[in-house]
Amino acid sequence: MSSARKARETFRFSIRVYYEDTDAAGVVYYANYLKYMERARTEWLSSLGFRLADLERLFGIVFVVHHVEIAYRRPARLGEELDATLTLIELHRARMVVVQEVLRDAIVFTSARVTLACLDRSNWRPMRIPTALHGRLESLL
Amino acid sequence: MSSARKARETFRFSIRVYYEDTDAAGVVYYANYLKYMERARTEWLSSLGFRLADLERLFGIVFVVHHVEIAYRRPARLGEELDATLTLIELHRARMVVVQEVLRDAIVFTSARVTLACLDRSNWRPMRIPTALHGRLESLL
Amino acid sequence: MSSARKARETFRFSIRVYYEDTDAAGVVYYANYLKYMERARTEWLSSLGFRLADLERLFGIVFVVHHVEIAYRRPARLGEELDATLTLIELHRARMVVVQEVLRDAIVFTSARVTLACLDRSNWRPMRIPTALHGRLESLL
Amino acid sequence: MSSARKARETFRFSIRVYYEDTDAAGVVYYANYLKYMERARTEWLSSLGFRLADLERLFGIVFVVHHVEIAYRRPARLGEELDATLTLIELHRARMVVVQEVLRDAIVFTSARVTLACLDRSNWRPMRIPTALHGRLESLL
Repeated sequence: MSSARKARETFRFSIRVYYEDTDAAGVVYYANYLKYMERARTEWLSSLGFRLADLERLFGIVFVVHHVEIAYRRPARLGEELDATLTLIELHRARMVVVQEVLRDAIVFTSARVTLACLDRSNWRPMRIPTALHGRLESLL
Repeated sequence: MSSARKARETFRFSIRVYYEDTDAAGVVYYANYLKYMERARTEWLSSLGFRLADLERLFGIVFVVHHVEIAYRRPARLGEELDATLTLIELHRARMVVVQEVLRDAIVFTSARVTLACLDRSNWRPMRIPTALHGRLESLL
Repeated sequence: MSSARKARETFRFSIRVYYEDTDAAGVVYYANYLKYMERARTEWLSSLGFRLADLERLFGIVFVVHHVEIAYRRPARLGEELDATLTLIELHRARMVVVQEVLRDAIVFTSARVTLACLDRSNWRPMRIPTALHGRLESLL
Repeated sequence: MSSARKARETFRFSIRVYYEDTDAAGVVYYANYLKYMERARTEWLSSLGFRLADLERLFGIVFVVHHVEIAYRRPARLGEELDATLTLIELHRARMVVVQEVLRDAIVFTSARVTLACLDRSNWRPMRIPTALHGRLESLL
């Protein structure tokens, strides 16, 4: 009924595959997709107005990956133009979960579910996501 | 009854944390644990008598990571001497699952469950694990 | 006389510093500037109409770095927006030399002189730079 | 007169080439030799009794690469067992120069001349190499 549950916004960031990303099997090395995903998260926060360096300097926080579940579906190759996408799916006080994919058009190369924890930079313990950022994130759900 | 279910053998490989492994947060960059785990898998196969380059040249196969579930428990730092461990827990015709940890004594930094697929190097399609290797792996379960 | 010695064209490519690029000293890890420079070379060739994957598939060649002389002047940090520049300064039959810098406005972080060899992909031996590409490169000098 | 110029000691450290080190051209990616060389420098200092983390904590210093000249002679491949060697050739108050090679038996893959600066960790400015370490280094020349 009613509702019109709005679709969640998906952020999208372009990635080009360079030699540095590939391995002797001729494809993107499996750990490097995590680099692509980190870039997408950084650019996503930046697009919301929150740059990592500022979050650290102003609020003393750092986001740390706590858990990753990643499926490798197809190999990507040298020179390909990919998109790294990100959708926020869960938001808690000191933690959030995002779904991230690396794809080209309808072809998904990898998809992951990544849990991020907000930590106090000085003692590496959980800390609440700063209010301004939390509010901004909430508006995406 | 009876049984005496034997404990599974765990392979262990030493890792030293260098600058290349760390990031500006002062700890090992999250994607780099996957590199440590790949090294451990390579050395494990090698310890069983099967080197990657030979598997590719002699059997035309390559092992590819299909799925990873990884939990980051504590941050490791520059200069630390870690162990990367590996235990085979599932073996199928063209696929196997290993549990891998990065730890120092009783302190676990990361733990992962990694699914590997055996692929035909020429067409990137699933292929049976070569008999000699399959037999050797079976003896570990 | 007269002269009108034209200034050499300098190619410019944007780089953002992510966590993956930094190390525990809080700055970009020294080897990673070589990655930035490789990206700039790839995009430069692409801007001239020659993509690496095509050069390999159509001409059977691969460009390989033979020599690098690199000076590290200042440390770049997380989040910085840098430019990687490239100027062709020498062109031979199977070899060329480029000067590359990583900078932000007038601040140079690293500068390098890189010698690239054109090799036959099948036997890893020197091979003439394909005529079409050589002509295009000559026009830049 | 006389002379008895003693041969300089060369430090040697083993490196195995893993997938992470290679690229789609099937060989070790050029920037990764700098990682091997950094590992050798770290282990060399450690073998002299000076661990990087201690140098930073006890003396507030960090060694930073100022200049590298590196020649790539042959490509190394997946699975190879290499040695990274290091010889100290110049020692100054806040700077030293080492020659480093990556080789296997008599086959040299890369050779480099690396200038390292000793910096104050707090302000990133040149600082004298701590006396104890300087003395130990002097004994190697």
